[in-house]
This record gives sequence, C-alpha cells and structure tokens, in this order.
Amino acid sequence: VNHPSHPALLSALRAALGPSHVIDEGDKSAWERDWRKRWNGKALAVVRPASAAEVAATVRLCAQHGVSIVPQGGNTGLVGGGVPDDSGTQVLLSLGRMNRVRGIDRANLTMTVDAGCVLQALQQAADDAGLLFPLSLAAEGSCTIGGNLATNAGGTQVLRYGNARELCLGLEVVTAQGEVWDGLSGLRKDNTGYDLRDLFIGSEGTLGIITGATLKLFPRPAASLTALATCGSLQQCVALLGLAQGRLGAGLTGFEVMNEFSLGLVRQHFPQLQQPLPASPWTALMEYADTDGEANARTRFEGLLESALEAGLIDDAAVAESLAQSASMWHLRESIPLAQSEEGLNVKHDIALPVSAIPAFCERTDAALQAAFPGIRLVNFGHLGDGNLHYNVQCPPGADAREFLARHEPAVNHIVYDAVQALAGSFSAEHGVGVLKRDELVERKSPVAVGMMRAIKSALDPSGLLNPGRVL
Amino acid sequence: VNHPSHPALLSALRAALGPSHVIDEGDKSAWERDWRKRWNGKALAVVRPASAAEVAATVRLCAQHGVSIVPQGGNTGLVGGGVPDDSGTQVLLSLGRMNRVRGIDRANLTMTVDAGCVLQALQQAADDAGLLFPLSLAAEGSCTIGGNLATNAGGTQVLRYGNARELCLGLEVVTAQGEVWDGLSGLRKDNTGYDLRDLFIGSEGTLGIITGATLKLFPRPAASLTALATCGSLQQCVALLGLAQGRLGAGLTGFEVMNEFSLGLVRQHFPQLQQPLPASPWTALMEYADTDGEANARTRFEGLLESALEAGLIDDAAVAESLAQSASMWHLRESIPLAQSEEGLNVKHDIALPVSAIPAFCERTDAALQAAFPGIRLVNFGHLGDGNLHYNVQCPPGADAREFLARHEPAVNHIVYDAVQALAGSFSAEHGVGVLKRDELVERKSPVAVGMMRAIKSALDPSGLLNPGRVL
Repeated sequence: VNHPSHPALLSALRAALGPSHVIDEGDKSAWERDWRKRWNGKALAVVRPASAAEVAATVRLCAQHGVSIVPQGGNTGLVGGGVPDDSGTQVLLSLGRMNRVRGIDRANLTMTVDAGCVLQALQQAADDAGLLFPLSLAAEGSCTIGGNLATNAGGTQVLRYGNARELCLGLEVVTAQGEVWDGLSGLRKDNTGYDLRDLFIGSEGTLGIITGATLKLFPRPAASLTALATCGSLQQCVALLGLAQGRLGAGLTGFEVMNEFSLGLVRQHFPQLQQPLPASPWTALMEYADTDGEANARTRFEGLLESALEAGLIDDAAVAESLAQSASMWHLRESIPLAQSEEGLNVKHDIALPVSAIPAFCERTDAALQAAFPGIRLVNFGHLGDGNLHYNVQCPPGADAREFLARHEPAVNHIVYDAVQALAGSFSAEHGVGVLKRDELVERKSPVAVGMMRAIKSALDPSGLLNPGRVL
Repeated sequence: VNHPSHPALLSALRAALGPSHVIDEGDKSAWERDWRKRWNGKALAVVRPASAAEVAATVRLCAQHGVSIVPQGGNTGLVGGGVPDDSGTQVLLSLGRMNRVRGIDRANLTMTVDAGCVLQALQQAADDAGLLFPLSLAAEGSCTIGGNLATNAGGTQVLRYGNARELCLGLEVVTAQGEVWDGLSGLRKDNTGYDLRDLFIGSEGTLGIITGATLKLFPRPAASLTALATCGSLQQCVALLGLAQGRLGAGLTGFEVMNEFSLGLVRQHFPQLQQPLPASPWTALMEYADTDGEANARTRFEGLLESALEAGLIDDAAVAESLAQSASMWHLRESIPLAQSEEGLNVKHDIALPVSAIPAFCERTDAALQAAFPGIRLVNFGHLGDGNLHYNVQCPPGADAREFLARHEPAVNHIVYDAVQALAGSFSAEHGVGVLKRDELVERKSPVAVGMMRAIKSALDPSGLLNPGRVL
C-alpha cells in the first residue's frame, strides 16, 4: 500500500511472463529464506522468466517502477546474497526455469547452457558426451551454474581446473538497462576490449544478471585415485603438497587437509564411517587423476607416497584400492561440516592465504584465540592446495554454543580476519561477500579498490536496481 | 608553444623523477616508433619513473596539466597501442626502469615482479628457482610483463597454461587519479568484490598503469618432447588435436599447425633448415611435457602417433630424438614470419575461432579470397589448440606487394573479418586492439558491449588521460 505503482508492475510482469510465473501470494519461503535459514526476507513477488528476453523485460519493467531486483539461482549461497531483504519491496528473480543445455561442441571442448541449470545436471551432460565438467562442490545437487558464476564458486578441483571463473569462456548477461549482452563465446583467446566477462563473474548479481554461459569441458581422465596420509604438522602438509605438485604435475587434482579435531568429530558423530589411518595432528586427502591407465597412475601415486615417507613428511598413508574406497575417503572429508553441526553452532570462516603462510597463520591465530577464549576448539580443514581453509571456531567444551556465538562472534571474527589481513590473505575465498561480509569488504579492502568498485557499480547500474546492499 | 603549461609540467616531472629521467630533447625514436615501424609518433617527453610512487606522481602532474599519458613496456606491440600519437603533446611513460623481481615464494608457486621486467628475464628467474614461468612468445627477449598483461599476451603454451591473464594472481596499478592500487596477491581464491585485476589485464593502458604483478609459477616438467605430423586436411588436424587432448591431457603443452605454403616459404628462403617430413597440405607441431621421465613420455607420445596413423588422421610423423631436434622443429615454425617478410609485405590477421569452426572458416574464406583476388596466397599457420590462426594474405605471385596492400588491404580485411564474425570468432586473438583495430571493435562488437566498455572507461578515467584513442 505504500507503493502505489506495484499493482501496475505486477500486472505488467504477468503480461510479460505469463500469470503463473509471477508469484506474489502464498508461501514464498523457498525463495525468501536461505537454505541455512540465516536470512528471512520478504519479496514483493517472485518472478520466474523463461528466457533472457523475459529477464530483460522484467528488468525494464522493474526499472520503470523503481523496484529493485534480487537474482537467485539454487538459493544455496552462504552469505545472504541471493535472498531479498525484509522490506517486501524487492522482486525476487529466479532463474530456475532457464535450465536448458543449449549445445555441446565436442571438438571445441565447450558447452553453452542456461544460467538456471543445476550444476550436477551439467556434470552429467558433459559425462554423457564423454567429457568432464570439473566444477564440483557440496551443493552441486541444488546450486545453479548462474549462481556458481555470480559468486565465482570454488570447490574440490580448483587445484587442477581453477575456480568457476577459469571454467567460463563467455556469458550472456542482462544489464541494468534491460538489454541482453550476448557475450557467449567458445574462444580461448579474444583480446577485443575490456574483459566484461570477468567483471560479471563474482559480482553477485549487482552489475547484471547472468542468463547463459559457455563453459570449458575437458577429456575425462582414464583413472582417478585417492589417498590419505597423516602428517605431524601443517609445515609437513605444505611440504607434501610441494612434493606432490612436482611429482604429479597437473595430475594432482585435489589436496585437502583435515585437523585432528575435525576427524575426531566425524569419529564421534559418525562412528560407522571407517577411518583407515590412526588419529594424527593432520590428515591430507590427495586425489590423482590423469589420462594414463590405472596401473601407471597407481605406480606414480605410490612412488610419491614412498618418497614422502622416506623424507619424513608423512607418518602413514593409504591408497584407495577401489572406487568405493575413494568415495569413502571423500565421504570422511565431506562429513566434517555435518559432524560440526551435530556438535553445535560454530563461527565459520572461509579464508584464503598464500600456501606458504598457512602454517604461520594457524600457529598465530590458534594461539590468539586460545588466549582470548581458553578451551576454544578449531574445526580446521579445507583445500590446502588452493590456500583455502574453512577455519571454524567451536566454543569450549561444555559452553553454550548459541550464547558463545551471540557474545563472541564479532571478537572471534576480528582476531581471525586481522590475522588473515596481516598475512595478505582473503576473508572470503569461495563464498563471496553478499550481506554477511559487506562490512569486512569496506573495512579491509583498500580504499582505492573500494572506490573503483563503487565507480564501476555506478557506471553499470546507476539507479542501484540490481541486488542493492550486496557486495558494496 | 601552443601549450604554455608544458614547461611547468616538465620541470615538475624533473623535480619528481630526477632530471635525467625526463627526456624531451634528442632522438626519442626508440620510444616514439613501434618496432615494425608502422607508427611514428612524437612525444612531449619520455619519462622513466623508477617506482609505482613515481608513476603515480607522473600521473598526478600530467592530470594537473591536462596532458595525456601513453604507457610503454618493451615497445613490441603489433597494434600501435604503446606509441604516442604525432601531436607532440603526450607524455610517453616508459616502465623500463622498473625491472626488479620483488620476490619468489616457492611454496606458494608465485613470483612478484615489477611491470618493466623483460619476459625472458622472468622465465630465467623462475628457472633459477627450479620452477617454470610458462608465458612464451616471439618477442620474449624484449617485451615486458607489464605489456604482456596490458595486452593479455598469448604465445605458444596457452593450450596448457592459459594466456597472460590466467598466469596472473594480482596486480599493482596506478589509477588515472594518480593513486596506487596495491592489488598484489598470491591467492588462488579470493572473492571479495569485483574482479579489478582482470579488468586491467587486456585494457592496454587505458584504465590504469600496471606497475607490478604477482605471477603463477609451475613445477618444471621432467621431460619435454616435440613431434611433427603431416595431415591431408584441417579436419584431420582438428581430429588429431582431439585425440591428443584425450590421450595426453594436460601433458599436451602445444599444438601448432602450418599450411604447405608457409613451410614452402621457409624451404625457399631458408633452405639450410631441415624439414624432416615431406611437403603436405598441413603439418602439425605438437609438444608434450610432463613430470614423468623422458622414457615414459616418449612411449605415450609414440602411442598417440601410432593411433593417429592407424586412424588415418596423419600420413607421416617424426618425434624429436634430442633437445636440438626439438629446437629445430620449433625453429621451422618460428621462421614462418621471417620467411613471409622475405617474400614481401602481406596482410596479417590474428584471429580466433572455435576449434570446431576452423576447417569451415578456412574453406570458405580461402575460396572467397580466391574469388575476389585470383592467385592470392595464404600464409596460414598458428595455435590450432587455442583456435588461433595467423591467417596472412600474400598477393598473387608477380604482383607488387606494396601496391596490392595499398589498394586491397581494406577489402581483404573485410572478407576475413566478416567470415570470422559469421562463425563467432574474434578479430584479435592475442595482439589486442590498440589503434589498428579500434574501428573493428566499434563496428564488430555488440553495441551493448561497447556501451559498457565506454561506461567503464568514463568511470575510471573520466578525463581521458590514459592512452586516449586506444581500444575505444
């Protein structure tokens, strides 16, 4: 009632998209609340366009009525970037109906897809064509490629294949002016003006709405092996990583680490999961894949582990003997977030550091947190090969987790992010900024960088129509 | 004399940089003329700052006096992007004195360097540290990394390692406001706001001046092998590429093709260079490298070639028996530009296409050119693995090359670029836009893209101080 133009907007949207694709009544919580239930928004309406042209029409209509737009993919984000605020004045634009694979070009090793395709469906489409789309992350059954690109998602194969950014050759984007930019491209080399593609990737829907993408595909590796190894210290993990990179080159597709407390939580809450190696300060999970056959792959992987044992970098190791064993090793790693949820709330961090700085970071920050909050526990695990740790802080044993978080979360964040900044790291490695880390961005990025970001936002979205209050 | 503020600017620059680093008299042709001698500019002065702070001071002083700046690295560009116009009113800012390797982080596989470092010196610095910096191109003895990044250079190892863009983790840039943005970063994952790094990469000095960079390093491969193979058609070359990618994965570091006329010119003008295989419509040059030893590498390379022979994709093949033989295979490929210079002027194109579209492109465009200019000859060679051809057009035998170019260059370009555009290709794969292809950019990119580029240029350099008239 405060917004007299909204009935006109809604009927114009219904005329453009069809009445069943503009939802302003009933339960909209599937779109209005994020999956971790941290943000509860209220949308003026949920609109579900079926094409880039319908997205463009939606943007133009919203612009005419001064109504802002929150684009949403699979709604699996972790920073509140894809849910509306609670004003009831924003249009939630869901890309979910745009879920078509537009084409696969085998000789060019590319695939052109709608933004609303679910990641797992794209992995499957590539596999059906005898190829590999390597982006892989926990939410792959629900997240969409548009959201993956808008947040430059990471995951477990970044070491070999890069982030979502590195897997994208071209984009189709609807601008804040409601125009369609056809930047789809299957080209590996193209130097014709400014890199608009990479500007939209990672901009979290604040500069434009990604409606399609051309993605890189790869030959499927002939063999893939997984191994676990225990290390006495993070320094040894870093040395093992260096040895593995030198010996296995691009064959090393994953290098994860898990601290003792993380695997202990898995042991405690999921005792049915077999842990092949004894408890140790650190356990590394390595994945090796290449175009050789399995026999040769095994020889090389075992050669690496023997060298690492001889060099005193690892105490023990186990190479998976089957695909099922590989899966159960990964299952241990993937169970950490579930086990920590069982243990209770914690303060999550998704940080990146130069790999060389990680041991010093953990030593310093563990100590600073212990000094400030004696008994505090660290669920520390992540993608060491990419310098990316999920450095999560659990309250001391016996304390009330909810109360601890309510009182101490800002102080914990402060200690962690100050240490990250001192070692030239990042306070958001793969989850983005959204609402959650917007203050960190303004506080911790250089004013020169923030100034340029604001200038770019104003240049491309002068009315602040697209996902306002996110990122900046 | 038309610019009364210039004496004041020059003395202010002398005070900021030291009098010997502001050159306004004598022979400045080394900076004013490009190395192919296609553009002859005239600079108000050549300034040679020694640090980012001095670059920033230069920008601020020029801004105060309304004088525009042309940044220059090794002055090896091919599109006129790094030489001043002929007005005598622009400051040529040479980064040549900023040539220090700031640091190498072995565990993080990164190197932080000044923008003015010569590419070959950086390859050497990485090698001295037991590592590889894989960017490699013909001008590597003179070009600088700042220029490589400003133009997003390609070269011969893009297939495996990507363009300059993919090899850069962070930048230090002086903005048009004369501020220093410290975006140096050794992080593989960082999602904290818009991707400013990739906006500056490839912007050819029009948005900011790159003064430093953090670059990715790689373990050195243990073995590297080169082979030649002859194919009856480009379709067969494309099929061979697909087979090689599937069999060798990331071990395939290079895949070049050369047409019969290209290698014929080499045979004619450099008869002392041995050509191991008989003349054929197409010859492919492949490079295979990985962290295995040489014996295993040879087995796999030979296995590929045997399969290709059996499949009828190639007629003949030769694997290099030694490093010297590898070098002489590469030398054949690298001699093509020299041989075509000996043959006389030609119309050069640096185009990219989806790999799958290359056979159709060549068939169509060869025919269209023959129809328009009977007897015309094509020096067609390039990086097939990246979809990048140097598709150069030589006048009919006996014709006067200079006269042919003067009369027909625009028509030739029109035929070639129309065909490129029809197949979703690029009119500049790895050389950039500069002055040479600015009109193509405005004509052939989508108006939506050009509009966004102009908005970004205005946002970051509202006074048009940096390299005006280039790119846009």
